[in-house]
Amino acid sequence: MSELFSRPGNETLDPQDWAAQTELGQQMVADMFDYLANIRKEKVWRPIPDEVKAKFKEPAPLDPQTQEDVYQEFRDLIMPFPMGNLHPRFWGWVIGTGTVSGALAEMLAAMLNPNTGGGEHVANYVEQQVIDWCKEMLGYPTSASGLLVSGCSMANLVGLTVARNSAVNYDMRRDGLQGARPILTAYASFETHSSIQKAMELLGLGSVSLRKIPVNSNLQIDLEALDMSIASDKQRGFIPMCVVGNAGTVNTGAIDDLNGLADICKRENIWFHVDGAFGALAALLPTQSPRLSGMERADSVAFDLHKWMYLPYEIGCVLVRDQELHREAFTLTPAYLTHNDRGPSGGENWFSDFGIQLSRGFKALKAWMSIKEYGLRKYARLIQQNIDQALYLTSKIEAHSHMEMMAPQSLNIVCFRYVIPGYSEQQLDRLNTEILLRLQEQGIAVPSGTEIEERYVIRAAMCNHRTRVEDLDLLLQSIEILASEIQDDAFVEVPVV
Amino acid sequence: MSELFSRPGNETLDPQDWAAQTELGQQMVADMFDYLANIRKEKVWRPIPDEVKAKFKEPAPLDPQTQEDVYQEFRDLIMPFPMGNLHPRFWGWVIGTGTVSGALAEMLAAMLNPNTGGGEHVANYVEQQVIDWCKEMLGYPTSASGLLVSGCSMANLVGLTVARNSAVNYDMRRDGLQGARPILTAYASFETHSSIQKAMELLGLGSVSLRKIPVNSNLQIDLEALDMSIASDKQRGFIPMCVVGNAGTVNTGAIDDLNGLADICKRENIWFHVDGAFGALAALLPTQSPRLSGMERADSVAFDLHKWMYLPYEIGCVLVRDQELHREAFTLTPAYLTHNDRGPSGGENWFSDFGIQLSRGFKALKAWMSIKEYGLRKYARLIQQNIDQALYLTSKIEAHSHMEMMAPQSLNIVCFRYVIPGYSEQQLDRLNTEILLRLQEQGIAVPSGTEIEERYVIRAAMCNHRTRVEDLDLLLQSIEILASEIQDDAFVEVPVV
Repeated sequence: MSELFSRPGNETLDPQDWAAQTELGQQMVADMFDYLANIRKEKVWRPIPDEVKAKFKEPAPLDPQTQEDVYQEFRDLIMPFPMGNLHPRFWGWVIGTGTVSGALAEMLAAMLNPNTGGGEHVANYVEQQVIDWCKEMLGYPTSASGLLVSGCSMANLVGLTVARNSAVNYDMRRDGLQGARPILTAYASFETHSSIQKAMELLGLGSVSLRKIPVNSNLQIDLEALDMSIASDKQRGFIPMCVVGNAGTVNTGAIDDLNGLADICKRENIWFHVDGAFGALAALLPTQSPRLSGMERADSVAFDLHKWMYLPYEIGCVLVRDQELHREAFTLTPAYLTHNDRGPSGGENWFSDFGIQLSRGFKALKAWMSIKEYGLRKYARLIQQNIDQALYLTSKIEAHSHMEMMAPQSLNIVCFRYVIPGYSEQQLDRLNTEILLRLQEQGIAVPSGTEIEERYVIRAAMCNHRTRVEDLDLLLQSIEILASEIQDDAFVEVPVV
Repeated sequence: MSELFSRPGNETLDPQDWAAQTELGQQMVADMFDYLANIRKEKVWRPIPDEVKAKFKEPAPLDPQTQEDVYQEFRDLIMPFPMGNLHPRFWGWVIGTGTVSGALAEMLAAMLNPNTGGGEHVANYVEQQVIDWCKEMLGYPTSASGLLVSGCSMANLVGLTVARNSAVNYDMRRDGLQGARPILTAYASFETHSSIQKAMELLGLGSVSLRKIPVNSNLQIDLEALDMSIASDKQRGFIPMCVVGNAGTVNTGAIDDLNGLADICKRENIWFHVDGAFGALAALLPTQSPRLSGMERADSVAFDLHKWMYLPYEIGCVLVRDQELHREAFTLTPAYLTHNDRGPSGGENWFSDFGIQLSRGFKALKAWMSIKEYGLRKYARLIQQNIDQALYLTSKIEAHSHMEMMAPQSLNIVCFRYVIPGYSEQQLDRLNTEILLRLQEQGIAVPSGTEIEERYVIRAAMCNHRTRVEDLDLLLQSIEILASEIQDDAFVEVPVV
């Protein structure tokens, strides 16, 4: 047979000239650091010209171009049109800022390029240590299992999978939900993040089985309404399988009464899952941790490290109190993955047994290096600083004759709007939408918008380590100027009610 | 209120000394390139000493240490104990090698740190272009939708979600599977990857609803058996919802008759999903693409770019022929994510509408830069080189008096074992296990092991761009030496049958 084909060649994707490649890599580092050191002078956001967009319609190149040329395209086409979340005046949605040392760690992780699905190599020990640190940070039991995931959507999905599989007295993985009776139900407040509903849909439970529970005036889940909903479902023959508590809702940062929820779940024998996407990390602060009391009693907790730990995307974490239930929900070891007790297929950390992915990148390294470099105390100070910024902004808004808070300030989120006496609610919605869009389009600042009780509000979420007090002052000054411009534009010329 | 708290400080996680930080970053680049340029001289794998493992049990530090010190720990504790997949003689499982330019792109992506869940910023156009290129590479319709995901486990999950949701005439997302009749079933060969079963379990379909279909002597799905299984299920009132075809099985690289499967699915009106984890990319080769014919007819295709495109972890892709069905399975837009038609919440690319994650990192950049730098022709040559290497290894094994092939060689995978006349099957299993473990433990080479027809076999998967012919020769020579050592050790001293 050996005559039937030519001897294979020895082509490689390694650089032909390592010295030149090193030089280019070092140039990239210098350029990026120069860019980030001066990010404050940039506009937060700018529109992408059509001719740039057109470049991204070109077909895949068959032939090579030099890495220098490709990098130049990156500098010309990509760098000038960022999302804006690197900038000190980005407070949109709940989007992390990232750090330069986190980005360097990503480079190191990608250079080493291990597959952290399992096996005996050191990356898996780093992963496990970061999971252990996550338990420490949240005051969660050390005996829990955990998994670093792409983010809280995945963390919520994993938590709810374990909840679902543990709620029935048959083999859910084998038999599924098809034709099963009675029907499983879950509970969460109206303010709960959409990823919980998405998880319900994916798991075959159906969004109809997610009971959305009303909230009180602080936008926390109404415990009495929850109790009644559970009782009513049980009476009708449903099986309540999971209650989701919020440690910081996405809309307003509200924190549910987690101990109250834990008590109900204990009494009713229901899985207690906490979605702490960003808020869970407030557990690092002595001033805030009492508000999160009860989180440590949850059966599973989901939270992100790429939000309020300022790490680059993607890294989230799910913790599950009962390791065995967690493993049982995901372990699956076919012949080609047989673990040996020696060599690289040995080792104690098989993360693919605890989640959906089999191949996994080395997410942990950026957390490991950053937590070591900064120490938890510095993270606590930065998180506190963001909360102080939210308080500062709130105090300025409350003192302002033409602005009003639209939800109780909680944690790092401030929901407010500009008001003009005599304007109708519809006019105020249009005014505030236009203020927000001009703030963004002119590259001044990027808060985002949301609706609270059907009214349009401007929402600033502080999880930016570059923000200074002067940035908040500039936000408010700019809103005043824009509001007056918009009035002059007769933009809101609907008849005044 | 403003008197109740102190004015927020202006602490940041940005470096205090940008010049020193740049220098350290450049040092990291130089160190990593030096390491990779000389990787051939390293052992492929080595055991981790207990004192190193102990370091990863330490609690989270409260106080900072310098980035230099942290980096030194990385060099001392992490770099020396890699998985081995950077090395020219790593052929374990199907694990990618990674490239240095891919790792630099990861650093650039992490520095820019956009959230590619959606919105109007340039990263999303890069994501879309890479998805378009993926369609080109696979010969898939340009009108299809797609999503870059963490890897093929997630890609398979997304594909099967759309299949499941599209199989019923009610709203699956709302009503779920609970109590639904009749029961949905899926079909795949016994050689299919475990991630398909995991997806069935997650989606609430239950692994019992995955019909495992026998294979022929080439380890391809038996079309007649599939036909019979579908017919029998329909007769019994089940709804066949999905057939999974393999474009390169994990065990042996077998490619199912994809046109045969597409014909059956068309006739029976069943969703056709292709798992092409690594094999799909053989479509780039004129010599191989005829074997993949029919893949372009699939309703969804899953494949990885971190395997046979040599990119660093994590990056996989799912393509779905019917954009609208894809979107319907995942779109969910709550108030706080309202899309505007202007500003950063505008834009046409909302990838969170097509998958599970809401926040998404900038996975596309490493693919975009690498495909531009190398061009598709170079990828085709490298993939062909890996196939040639598998053919070369096969020819040497077939010509060897003490080695035998254990499955037909297909694509890049070679399954074989060492044989000693007179040894029982059990002795051969033990012998080959021991050969594999010593190969790995002595750092000579890392193939992996699997079972084929209950026999232990050594399995070499070629998706390494650093492998040279001399590495394959060394593998075979080392196996001979180890086999003779093991015989001398009287390791296999079970009575000879």
